[in-house]
Amino acid sequence: MPDREIAYDEMLSAMGRDLLPNAIRKLTTLLGRRDVISLAAGAPSAETFPLEELADIAARVIRSRGQFVLQYGPTRGPQSLLEAIADMLKGRGIASAAPSRVVITSGSQQGLDIASRLLIDPGDVAMVELPSYIGGIIALHNARAEMVGVRQDEGGIVIADLREKIARLRKAGRRVKCVYTIPNFQNPSGVSLAIERREQLVAAADEFDLLIVEDDPYFDLAFAEGVRPQPLAALRPDRVIYLGSFSKVLAPGLRAAYLCAPEALATKAELAKEGADLSTSVLDQAIVLEALRSGLIEKRLPELRRFYEVRCRAMLDALRRFAPAGARWTEPAGGFFILLELAAGQDANAVLTQAIDAGVAYVPGQPFFVDGGGANTLRLAYSKETPEKLAEGIARLSRVLGGREHAGAV
Amino acid sequence: MPDREIAYDEMLSAMGRDLLPNAIRKLTTLLGRRDVISLAAGAPSAETFPLEELADIAARVIRSRGQFVLQYGPTRGPQSLLEAIADMLKGRGIASAAPSRVVITSGSQQGLDIASRLLIDPGDVAMVELPSYIGGIIALHNARAEMVGVRQDEGGIVIADLREKIARLRKAGRRVKCVYTIPNFQNPSGVSLAIERREQLVAAADEFDLLIVEDDPYFDLAFAEGVRPQPLAALRPDRVIYLGSFSKVLAPGLRAAYLCAPEALATKAELAKEGADLSTSVLDQAIVLEALRSGLIEKRLPELRRFYEVRCRAMLDALRRFAPAGARWTEPAGGFFILLELAAGQDANAVLTQAIDAGVAYVPGQPFFVDGGGANTLRLAYSKETPEKLAEGIARLSRVLGGREHAGAV
Repeated sequence: MPDREIAYDEMLSAMGRDLLPNAIRKLTTLLGRRDVISLAAGAPSAETFPLEELADIAARVIRSRGQFVLQYGPTRGPQSLLEAIADMLKGRGIASAAPSRVVITSGSQQGLDIASRLLIDPGDVAMVELPSYIGGIIALHNARAEMVGVRQDEGGIVIADLREKIARLRKAGRRVKCVYTIPNFQNPSGVSLAIERREQLVAAADEFDLLIVEDDPYFDLAFAEGVRPQPLAALRPDRVIYLGSFSKVLAPGLRAAYLCAPEALATKAELAKEGADLSTSVLDQAIVLEALRSGLIEKRLPELRRFYEVRCRAMLDALRRFAPAGARWTEPAGGFFILLELAAGQDANAVLTQAIDAGVAYVPGQPFFVDGGGANTLRLAYSKETPEKLAEGIARLSRVLGGREHAGAV
Repeated sequence: MPDREIAYDEMLSAMGRDLLPNAIRKLTTLLGRRDVISLAAGAPSAETFPLEELADIAARVIRSRGQFVLQYGPTRGPQSLLEAIADMLKGRGIASAAPSRVVITSGSQQGLDIASRLLIDPGDVAMVELPSYIGGIIALHNARAEMVGVRQDEGGIVIADLREKIARLRKAGRRVKCVYTIPNFQNPSGVSLAIERREQLVAAADEFDLLIVEDDPYFDLAFAEGVRPQPLAALRPDRVIYLGSFSKVLAPGLRAAYLCAPEALATKAELAKEGADLSTSVLDQAIVLEALRSGLIEKRLPELRRFYEVRCRAMLDALRRFAPAGARWTEPAGGFFILLELAAGQDANAVLTQAIDAGVAYVPGQPFFVDGGGANTLRLAYSKETPEKLAEGIARLSRVLGGREHAGAV
């Protein structure tokens, strides 16, 4: 053994030295306690997993096609799965979707990582929403992007703010590469991009010659029946890297998601993926393909939407009853999240330990704000607990935050 | 739609612009023809996959623990799997192995990508073997490493050449960060690092204050009974990022591998993985854990070793009979590969199309040599075809290369 201590930090790359912990996942791992109601984890309810169907499918694909599904597979994914996803995306209005534009990714997080690595040189600028998804922020950070936050209101990203900031950055000689957006039922805010702003956003991308990274994991989870949001990729496919996922509508433990991009970029994404992990789990891809083909995913959607709508309503009802004075919150039309904004000056991070001791957990909003703001915000997920526990969780939270007390009623 | 064409290339990062295709995988996708004997794909034989056992395990883990194995999982992997792998590594002589040093990766390729990203700033130097594994070369390339090749002989990497080159690079002010090595039954050469050189290699890492990235997917596939190679990580755990895989001893379609590194680096690898894909397929990890716990992997090893030894011998026999004059080849003691070196001046790439037309495929060696050499070498994999087809493949190859003709005998 060497005499000197090894200075690992000096051996690291700039990326290696500056890695950020993911505030959500850090928190999730701290939460072993059964008596804590989790409004923290943005995970689907395990109640929604079709266990029997997936157990059958897994055994069947291994027995009938094991020589393929247990073997190395093509980096981009099997042609049959690429075709099934292209068809599905055509159903979302993305008329240009085709296997040549689709690449399977090992979860949408890999799509975010690949898009960031393909586009960003150190110091390049990415425009992100205030607040934005931590996983996307981390991927851009790891590519050493400078992130500039754009204001959001109830209608999503504020186009005037976006345009003004891009114009100013360009004037200052900065390379602005992309806008990262979650247009539907955003994580963490629950907000959706208003219809008229979708056209305005892609027009801005045209004008400023930018790409849009459109992260759309909640597309299928609009509460209102028949509502199908319009992807930005449907409006301007040549400007959009579209990321989709099966985590919320099937099961996140299968790490098979996809991106759809202009062919030139899909080809690059495939090459980047080859270096990143050769291919996504071939078994997971085979299971997802069967779930798509058999209609398992499609037929469960109405039920899933109701499932999460009931939980969202339970949380909203509880907020109306218990929320502390001066608090405001978003009213999502789908997805998993509500953003709670406390009165100015309050600090959601400071009371987290107290909240966990009181039996309720949430994710403080600040890490979702790349401008350092949001200290008085909380991300509340209604996806994982029962309606009764959600109400009880909000009541507990309210006590910690000094809200109206109705303990007897819960 | 915008009037102008979009110049995607100008939007890319330097990494995105310079992506290299993987010569192996490119070739594999070209090979649809049933009548072509593939000495190209370095994949395990599908005959070795325990289909029934894995189908049972998959269905069982979903039915009995679906709420966990279909849910998001911890980035580093489940504690139970980290413990099982740490125990296995102790059995390889890596006494320091512990769950705090292990990180599950989505295939060893992700381990290579993460190690490269953690260590390399653009222009940093990585020392690699001549030849080396293309997947490792691509990962280092994507991190924008400058790779410097080190000579190999029958005893593996030549330590004097390594030391001389590192010394010269440092004198020139270059930051040399790591040595990337595959010490056992190397891909593509089949060569193993001699015992005495293992101590010399880790001593050089100490002296030059470098890390070693030790890629060891073939550890369990020594042909001789009872042979257990000594990992570099067993000699100097504080200097080594050790990468292991289940692809060759269970099934590569499950993308669950692992790295073992000093704690400070394992922590960084976990954070990097969080940004790269959140976690490896939770289902794949659960299946691998069951395969480890039940002894499925361990009990099949003697049979697997014989399986590949028989194939290696068949190829070596055929080479002795058919190889063209002036050709030399390696004689592996395990693993999947033989490197064939033609007489100087011959070009393995130039005759590939002709070979495929003649019904045999291989991977030209040049892409494995970062110094641009190796034009007269071929990587021959004996892992995928039957002994009879291997002999026939070498006979076909021989005809193309102008070797001795014994067509009637095959």
